[in-house]
Amino acid sequence: MEPGDAARLGRGRAARALPPRLLLLPLLPLLLGRGLRAAASASSSGAAAEDSSAMEELATEKEAEESHRQDSVSLLTFILLLTLTILTIWLFKHRRVRFLHETGLAMIYGLIVGVILRYGTPATGGHDKSVSCTQEDRAFSTLLVNVSGKFFEYTLKGEISPGKINSVEQNDILRKVTFDPEVFFNILLPPIIFHAGYSLKKRHFFRNLGSILAYAFLGTAVSCFIIGNLMYGVVKLMKVVGQLSDKFYYTDCLFFGAIISATDPVTVLAIFNELHADVDLYALLFGESVLNDAVAIVLSSSIVAYQPAGLNTHAFDAAAFFKSVGIFLGIFSGSFTMGAVTGVVTALISKFTKLHCFPLLETALFFLMSWSTFLLAEACGFTGVVAVLFCGITQAHYTYNNLSVESRSRTKQLFEVLHFLAENFIFSYMGLALFTFQKHVFSPVFIIGAFVAIFLGRAAHIYPLSFFLNLGRRHKIGWNFQHMMMFSGLRGAMAFALAIRDTASYARQMMFTTTLLIVFFTVWIIGGGTTPMLSWLNIRVGVEEPSEEDQNARRSQYFRVGVDPDQDPPPNNDSFQVLQGDGPDSARGNRTKQESAWLFRLWYSFDHNYLKPILTHTGPPLTTTLPAWCGLLARCLTSPQVYDNQEPLREEDSDFILTEGDLTLTYGDSTVTANGSSGSHTASTSLEGSRRTKSSSEEVLDRALGMGDQPVSSRGTRLVFPLEDNA
Amino acid sequence: MEPGDAARLGRGRAARALPPRLLLLPLLPLLLGRGLRAAASASSSGAAAEDSSAMEELATEKEAEESHRQDSVSLLTFILLLTLTILTIWLFKHRRVRFLHETGLAMIYGLIVGVILRYGTPATGGHDKSVSCTQEDRAFSTLLVNVSGKFFEYTLKGEISPGKINSVEQNDILRKVTFDPEVFFNILLPPIIFHAGYSLKKRHFFRNLGSILAYAFLGTAVSCFIIGNLMYGVVKLMKVVGQLSDKFYYTDCLFFGAIISATDPVTVLAIFNELHADVDLYALLFGESVLNDAVAIVLSSSIVAYQPAGLNTHAFDAAAFFKSVGIFLGIFSGSFTMGAVTGVVTALISKFTKLHCFPLLETALFFLMSWSTFLLAEACGFTGVVAVLFCGITQAHYTYNNLSVESRSRTKQLFEVLHFLAENFIFSYMGLALFTFQKHVFSPVFIIGAFVAIFLGRAAHIYPLSFFLNLGRRHKIGWNFQHMMMFSGLRGAMAFALAIRDTASYARQMMFTTTLLIVFFTVWIIGGGTTPMLSWLNIRVGVEEPSEEDQNARRSQYFRVGVDPDQDPPPNNDSFQVLQGDGPDSARGNRTKQESAWLFRLWYSFDHNYLKPILTHTGPPLTTTLPAWCGLLARCLTSPQVYDNQEPLREEDSDFILTEGDLTLTYGDSTVTANGSSGSHTASTSLEGSRRTKSSSEEVLDRALGMGDQPVSSRGTRLVFPLEDNA
Repeated sequence: MEPGDAARLGRGRAARALPPRLLLLPLLPLLLGRGLRAAASASSSGAAAEDSSAMEELATEKEAEESHRQDSVSLLTFILLLTLTILTIWLFKHRRVRFLHETGLAMIYGLIVGVILRYGTPATGGHDKSVSCTQEDRAFSTLLVNVSGKFFEYTLKGEISPGKINSVEQNDILRKVTFDPEVFFNILLPPIIFHAGYSLKKRHFFRNLGSILAYAFLGTAVSCFIIGNLMYGVVKLMKVVGQLSDKFYYTDCLFFGAIISATDPVTVLAIFNELHADVDLYALLFGESVLNDAVAIVLSSSIVAYQPAGLNTHAFDAAAFFKSVGIFLGIFSGSFTMGAVTGVVTALISKFTKLHCFPLLETALFFLMSWSTFLLAEACGFTGVVAVLFCGITQAHYTYNNLSVESRSRTKQLFEVLHFLAENFIFSYMGLALFTFQKHVFSPVFIIGAFVAIFLGRAAHIYPLSFFLNLGRRHKIGWNFQHMMMFSGLRGAMAFALAIRDTASYARQMMFTTTLLIVFFTVWIIGGGTTPMLSWLNIRVGVEEPSEEDQNARRSQYFRVGVDPDQDPPPNNDSFQVLQGDGPDSARGNRTKQESAWLFRLWYSFDHNYLKPILTHTGPPLTTTLPAWCGLLARCLTSPQVYDNQEPLREEDSDFILTEGDLTLTYGDSTVTANGSSGSHTASTSLEGSRRTKSSSEEVLDRALGMGDQPVSSRGTRLVFPLEDNA
Repeated sequence: MEPGDAARLGRGRAARALPPRLLLLPLLPLLLGRGLRAAASASSSGAAAEDSSAMEELATEKEAEESHRQDSVSLLTFILLLTLTILTIWLFKHRRVRFLHETGLAMIYGLIVGVILRYGTPATGGHDKSVSCTQEDRAFSTLLVNVSGKFFEYTLKGEISPGKINSVEQNDILRKVTFDPEVFFNILLPPIIFHAGYSLKKRHFFRNLGSILAYAFLGTAVSCFIIGNLMYGVVKLMKVVGQLSDKFYYTDCLFFGAIISATDPVTVLAIFNELHADVDLYALLFGESVLNDAVAIVLSSSIVAYQPAGLNTHAFDAAAFFKSVGIFLGIFSGSFTMGAVTGVVTALISKFTKLHCFPLLETALFFLMSWSTFLLAEACGFTGVVAVLFCGITQAHYTYNNLSVESRSRTKQLFEVLHFLAENFIFSYMGLALFTFQKHVFSPVFIIGAFVAIFLGRAAHIYPLSFFLNLGRRHKIGWNFQHMMMFSGLRGAMAFALAIRDTASYARQMMFTTTLLIVFFTVWIIGGGTTPMLSWLNIRVGVEEPSEEDQNARRSQYFRVGVDPDQDPPPNNDSFQVLQGDGPDSARGNRTKQESAWLFRLWYSFDHNYLKPILTHTGPPLTTTLPAWCGLLARCLTSPQVYDNQEPLREEDSDFILTEGDLTLTYGDSTVTANGSSGSHTASTSLEGSRRTKSSSEEVLDRALGMGDQPVSSRGTRLVFPLEDNA
């Protein structure tokens, strides 16, 4: 605190300690005085008692005004930071600089501003007031304070540790740029996560669904436990060495393992997109990172809910453990259901109303329904962010097909902009927080331990899982892919948001500081090393399809930033073939029924026969797929457009049935059961015929899995049915 | 308060009055108990003292969680309200129901939900706490409360009048759905106002600029004074009758006059748009309502700042009055400058960077810069909403031309959606507030007086001003137009936001209630009566141009909601000709130089010669318009595209020069001064030549004043140079 400020504050307090109203009036301009109105109120200090109360009102108003002005300034700081980031990103894109991603840049600018705010601004004395109300031992969310007969309402902002009270009073500006942690979780994360779900490149995602689920669920759990246990060892070591000044339980370590297991390879994926790197690797990385965000949130809240009975509250307890597992499954499935249901409701609304004649209404409805998923899940005690993710996937799969062309681009662009702004805001806030956050606990041992632990945790999850997955996959995940996945374990927005959510205890503060440093390190170093790593690992990049000149032209005209939702990356199966050493024809000849894909195929046929026709204007008419006794219902649910599309669908569908083994599709008046293996299929048709049938089947798939209006980049090239294991 | 609640609360309080921690623990499930974790914590009531503090933390956490859940529910209520509104709007549009606008609908749904919340939900006891700290006589913005050694931070929410304290404790749910008034001003109004500026149909706006400015500035001031004085009479009357229970000063009456003078003919304009009613009337109404919002804000804050010196604080004081006028001018011009400067900076950035290759970056930058205008103005003590309006106009005039085609539609659609959501949110909140707002002061005398006053205020502003304007206008504002303008004096979002901003005093609460009722009445009755009124006043509607089949096809495919920014309404000068009884050719032949348009033409030529070339890629090269000595600067500022466009521009420009009287354009190597009146022009060219030249000149104008990519709906039709007085 500067001496002048102390004097000013002291004078202010001395004035307040006396009961008088008139004494306060001449001090008003000193305390709050600015500009015209202050001068006006000072000149009327001789006013009657009635007016002095008006003066007081004016003073409170002025204080609120000043506070509002400071809020504006701090928000302006962030906006100018983002503006600067955007302009520098443009410069980097323009000069094709790839070693630093926009998020890394945002962090650097945030750091610089943080340093300026921390060391460059004078400490200002706040008008805070300390009241001792020791008769109670709990805090209340609302406080009514009787100040000389007037009642003022106060809301609880949070607890402040006693040692920090002076710093609270001092660092007014630093506090102004510190946001409520819930802002990150409730305002900034949802658009990011929704956009991830909405822009999922579904064809490649579903083709690798099994592996993605394994990485996301098993992998995150493994990573969480390994990091948790390693960190517990580190904490024990710190206790021995005497580096630990407060409690740090095993559950805290597991919590750290959960929050730091959420990967966010945003910079790696941006470079993949720009260099047109392998699409299956892209799908694996993107799918894993999207789902493990959801897993990490639910996992961390399950760990917080782990409360063993009895005295020994932080030891292992089987009952509490299984309850935690139950909570995990309950929250996850509840959030999933919530998201899917809202998506389905939106699809039904957009199908059965003619809302597509009014793109503005349609877009607004889409936005509101997606947002209500979040709120609904939060209101029911589930996790809004997870619900929003699955809502996004459902919306992309069903609702998107019902939207008008204008609404499709509107919704995509709206969420793209929101995602972009939210992501860069979070990253620049991270940079800022390193210097302006006031509860940092830097512990070198813990930090070094954490870096080692996340490295080992990632390794223990990628390599063994890939080994087991390769046992079941026909098309193996090569060593170079495994190394790349190992390398791409960046931490980002989700880890930060989870860490900042609760920084009340010493252990959580240490975790927050460590998480911040891990995010910095991984985004800068790993993000910058992606391009050399790709070439070092011999992962093919820049693979373009010869038939897509127009798409290239478009691409060179409008360079994209971040994850591009509009285009599937060009399909590139070559790296797989290189790995396997098989020619394309022999690979196709080898296609056999795979056990692991059975469930997916069942789902696909259910989706195609029932869900798509019910929820969208595509697919076969329900009158043909549903049993006869629900004929009326089927007629009501089927949209007239489906009958118009009937002929081409029938043809494509029968193609589809013929080419795929063990898939029963009831269609038209006849039921066709195709049980032939692909070997017999190859025997029964010529190679040319197979090619033709294949490409028709792919069209069906593109329509079924891809977004409707995308350029079907796969046509005429060797593309495969999206069973995970076909190469 | 329900008896059960009282008992529960009483038990809770009794428990709290004792000092014990252990006593509190068994009560925890009673007070907060829900679900799994509460049961878990109850079962551990025998835990050690250390754990009891953990329990307390858990309890506070749970309370925060519960509060968060309630917040989610209340937000969800609004979102479902909006969803319902959207679906009903669709139904209405679909069935072509025109008697109720979407905003009126939103209010009705809001009312219904308000009634349910008010009378359908049980009063719940809050966990509020009353603390007496009578030693101080001022409230502080932040309070640190020491609760048994722990410090909690509270922020000031506002003052509560003593009589309302019980209702505060009771109506937890009602308080949850009550938003901070500043939300309306700082979050919901800016997108609405920016969108108004950005979607201004500039051709028609500039053609009627003089009249619009007169209505907005003079008209609002006249209306404010007349309403203020009439209401002062009403207040005096109420004092005599004994209906007034608290202070109500003359400045309060003037303040009411200011806030209620902001018209918002959103429903009228939507119907105009849908029926394709007269464009000049549309421009007059829209322009007036956009600008008088800005005037009303600044006027109301100037009236608040009116603080006469001496004892008699609420009497007239010339010095204070002129200071208020000075504040008005200062704030208005400051906000105007702020908005214009940010717009110009955005235009320069988008011109000199190649950001248009990255539409996402461009859109994000555009959004951030527009938002920073608001914050910058607020931080400097100006009015953010006014700054945002002029920023929108500047962005539409300059920046828009530099954006890529994709960004143009992105920015328009983004702000359209934001505008739509914000507007409908405000109107449904209004409906809700009628029942959930807890400080209503219904005074029948005041309300009736207000209705009479706004009627008289509007009449005293429209008819005399139109009379004086008609003296200067060649193309008169007919009686039917005047009646329609009189009729369209609806009050909407701006009046509500200004009224709810401060509801601390008795007078302000009475004003708020009255404003709410005025908005309801005008939106429902006047909004519903627009269509009959249009036909009764013989204002021509449904005027389509024969050459625009494609545009019509598009229109029938996508019906638009609200104010449509994409399309100019089809130009329709017929009603003017009908009024004047002149044929089109004689009207053109009569064109003469008009004094009133001199300033506008000066500005137009300055804009065309200097501003457009500096800020956009259009217009003549600066190297030709600037004097020779700033050649280097001119070369730097002129973009290469201008030279490419040089030939067509030269041709159009010379056409433009030939057709317009008294306009000097320096261009190319030669300076052409065209001083001929339009009479001499008609003499020198054939009628066909005149038609051709005319249409070329209109293209220049469309490019200069209209948005670049709009379908030039005027081509081939008789359109006039946008001087206010040409018919």
